Amino acid sequence: MNSALNVLIQETTIITQLRKVASVLNWDRETSMPVNSGKARADQIALILSLAHTRFTGKDFRKSLGNLINLDSGRIRNGDLSPDQAKMVSLTWQDWHRAIALPAEFVGQLANLTSEAHGIWQLAREKNRFDLFAPYLARIVEMKRREAEFLGYDDEPYDALLANYEPDITTADLVHLFDQLRPTLVSLARRIGDSEVDDHRHILKQHFDLQLQEAFGLQVLRDMGYDMSRGRQDQSAHPFTTNFHPSDVRITTRLSETQLAMGLFGSIHEGGHALYEQGMNEKYFGTPLCEAVSLGFHESQSRLWENYVARSLPFWEYYYPKLQGTFPRQLADFDLYTFYKAVNAVTPSNIRVEADEVTYNLHIMVRFDLERALMNGELQVQDLQEEWNRRMHEHLGIVPPDDTEGVLQDIHWSLGALGYFPTYTLGNLYGRQIFDVARSQIADFDNRLANGDLKTLREWLRQNIHHVGRAISAKNLIKSISDEALSARPFINYLETKYGEIYQL
Amino acid sequence: MNSALNVLIQETTIITQLRKVASVLNWDRETSMPVNSGKARADQIALILSLAHTRFTGKDFRKSLGNLINLDSGRIRNGDLSPDQAKMVSLTWQDWHRAIALPAEFVGQLANLTSEAHGIWQLAREKNRFDLFAPYLARIVEMKRREAEFLGYDDEPYDALLANYEPDITTADLVHLFDQLRPTLVSLARRIGDSEVDDHRHILKQHFDLQLQEAFGLQVLRDMGYDMSRGRQDQSAHPFTTNFHPSDVRITTRLSETQLAMGLFGSIHEGGHALYEQGMNEKYFGTPLCEAVSLGFHESQSRLWENYVARSLPFWEYYYPKLQGTFPRQLADFDLYTFYKAVNAVTPSNIRVEADEVTYNLHIMVRFDLERALMNGELQVQDLQEEWNRRMHEHLGIVPPDDTEGVLQDIHWSLGALGYFPTYTLGNLYGRQIFDVARSQIADFDNRLANGDLKTLREWLRQNIHHVGRAISAKNLIKSISDEALSARPFINYLETKYGEIYQL
Repeated sequence: MNSALNVLIQETTIITQLRKVASVLNWDRETSMPVNSGKARADQIALILSLAHTRFTGKDFRKSLGNLINLDSGRIRNGDLSPDQAKMVSLTWQDWHRAIALPAEFVGQLANLTSEAHGIWQLAREKNRFDLFAPYLARIVEMKRREAEFLGYDDEPYDALLANYEPDITTADLVHLFDQLRPTLVSLARRIGDSEVDDHRHILKQHFDLQLQEAFGLQVLRDMGYDMSRGRQDQSAHPFTTNFHPSDVRITTRLSETQLAMGLFGSIHEGGHALYEQGMNEKYFGTPLCEAVSLGFHESQSRLWENYVARSLPFWEYYYPKLQGTFPRQLADFDLYTFYKAVNAVTPSNIRVEADEVTYNLHIMVRFDLERALMNGELQVQDLQEEWNRRMHEHLGIVPPDDTEGVLQDIHWSLGALGYFPTYTLGNLYGRQIFDVARSQIADFDNRLANGDLKTLREWLRQNIHHVGRAISAKNLIKSISDEALSARPFINYLETKYGEIYQL
Repeated sequence: MNSALNVLIQETTIITQLRKVASVLNWDRETSMPVNSGKARADQIALILSLAHTRFTGKDFRKSLGNLINLDSGRIRNGDLSPDQAKMVSLTWQDWHRAIALPAEFVGQLANLTSEAHGIWQLAREKNRFDLFAPYLARIVEMKRREAEFLGYDDEPYDALLANYEPDITTADLVHLFDQLRPTLVSLARRIGDSEVDDHRHILKQHFDLQLQEAFGLQVLRDMGYDMSRGRQDQSAHPFTTNFHPSDVRITTRLSETQLAMGLFGSIHEGGHALYEQGMNEKYFGTPLCEAVSLGFHESQSRLWENYVARSLPFWEYYYPKLQGTFPRQLADFDLYTFYKAVNAVTPSNIRVEADEVTYNLHIMVRFDLERALMNGELQVQDLQEEWNRRMHEHLGIVPPDDTEGVLQDIHWSLGALGYFPTYTLGNLYGRQIFDVARSQIADFDNRLANGDLKTLREWLRQNIHHVGRAISAKNLIKSISDEALSARPFINYLETKYGEIYQL
């Protein structure tokens, strides 16, 4: 191999390993760490991440990278590189360019601010007082505006933040997609609200033994092709997926004795993320070719499994008899279609993470509009709570009873993660567009699901998406899969058809 | 604070944190990691440890240290340091001096060799063939001789290896202690072998529910003062204690359904180690003052709890009725003294880790004699198996049936850890000398044990040992506690009295 490339890959691998080590430390914190060890652990994570950052932005790295690519223009210097290698160098340069755009002092200040703000946010939530958090959020917004200036953008500052998570999508793209989506969703939610169909959601709120729930979830995960010799599932307060290498991809779940859907769909959701990470091309570990193409694409994999597979009728044709066998007392009296309606029940609610497929994206749009207005200076933090409530009413027809269930509900802003929310809706859109193609390309697709064959889909996703890493950009990947650009149409068609039928609209 | 000292402490804290991070990675490997993730994890651990080593032996560290102490003579330069601060700098210099004594190339070669040798040892054990491992061990011995030359020594090369684990003790000290100990132990073991007293060991080999065993062990650990908000217990193939900070000290245990003693005394043993780490002075974290004074002293804390407390009659006066309550079917028919005899049963056996208090140290002497002879060139690896068997017969009156139960049984040599074994016996000796003093200084000691008061002893140990860290050397610490140098006498008296009574000698 090209020796300059070799040196660069050695460096990116060390930086990647450091980040993975920080992920191990974080996994342990969320699943295993004793309650009084938090301070020491925070110091350890900060140290490892700062070593990674220092290496990535240091002189040696600049020199290794500069041997292969013009650091200003991003033009590859070396004609000997294969297309994959050139892509690897070019993506590394893009990441590097964003990393060095932020002065070290600024990065440190932002880290200190968000670390403090996160604690204040927790307190403000407990006390149900947005006014405690507001001054910190105002400072975060101000720093995020400076961040956008450092990073640069074409149209508006929000573009720069979005690119932290979804490099191929602009604010204008989002506005366009959301303009298609919004009226459909608002109308669909209203029509469902007016429907007199009983969705039988109460059958999911009986008492379900935790160990049986866990065993059932694990069986579905195995059937999906989640490799337990290269992964594991634990409990944590907030479910997440993490990876330390394609050979060690872990998920967590949260089980409730009185809410069957939470643990089951949570496990499948995280399982979808985990299949993406387990399916990466290991030989490129330590380079961008062994990384997810974007957060929206990552979310597409979790939503695809959670909603398009596991909230479908064929899926439950196979699994519902098994679930009834596991919980006969609770479920024997209800037929398949009743259960199918229950897991697809739609109601406007104040809490995003509890929202159904139809209303979920309205929560995201509320947040996107607010974030964008804050970044553009059209909205002040002091007016955020009022504006939140107004928009919730406009989109969902309800108003949160307090700040904890309203403007304070999400962790993201306290961490400075403005620009993140849209990736959830992008996940739904990418996911449905991908699912429709998979369904058309895999022979006998619905029958396969109805017979418990989940692995054919897993294999299709692995070949078409997981194994690709960042070798193809999100924009090109969705085009190469579906022959068209990302669109809200497949998702809208899916919702209209599915919920039209369930609620007899 | 002195600003040069501040810089040094910042550096030692980063190096310490890196080592602790490696410990987290290792803990996860032994308790949680999926089976097929080993390669990636080995790379992560190697990376973090090499970053720590590079920092410790690099130019910047040398400069920071050199500002405070003469790097050749070890004389403190700066008169402003408090005695504790001077001690801190001086110990850091000692550690640094040993670390830089070994050329980086040599360290790398040894790491590669032992990494390979460890795999071969596992294979050789499986196949029961010492000849497969012998050539690797020969190369390890040769490199250990070179290591001794790099490190330097006064009398013989073994001194240099010993100092890796027990800086205050020389080979001559060990020979002197072992000369006292050996004849007593050989004679005591023989007399016990000739005794006709039934020790009722079979009562520990019934069926004991694992969850009940675990719960009982956890209760004893809590009673000992092991703080579960700053620690936790898990299962692993080989029990160990690890720490990431005084606020996160974890132990593991191995439970067997048919061997009650294994899990119970194993947990208490690791609990003794854990109390030492939890009892360190947190404000000195990142410096030698928040580290154990020596491995022998560390082992003294585990042995003291495992043997001198938990194999004593007063301890079981309190706990045996509770254990009978936990396992009535198995234990109701046996009285306290019968149980006490069972947990103190003595028999020569081939396996060190299963040995009793009397014969354990004979295993150590066999290994010490062999290691020393190898280092002095008086014994060749090719003759090691024969010599092992000959000495086992001489010391314990038995000969291993094969290599797996003989010369291949321990992991230590495959890791290059020559000089480590004696710390186990030192632990027994330090431990008993300390225990006798604690018993004389704590009013009503035996009654306290018989009433379940373990925390008074924990507190005494914390003040006299745990909190001291390395501020006082092992040699001075044992003197300051007991008014005399380390001696085999307290241990010999203890064994003669206890086993004379049990076996009616």
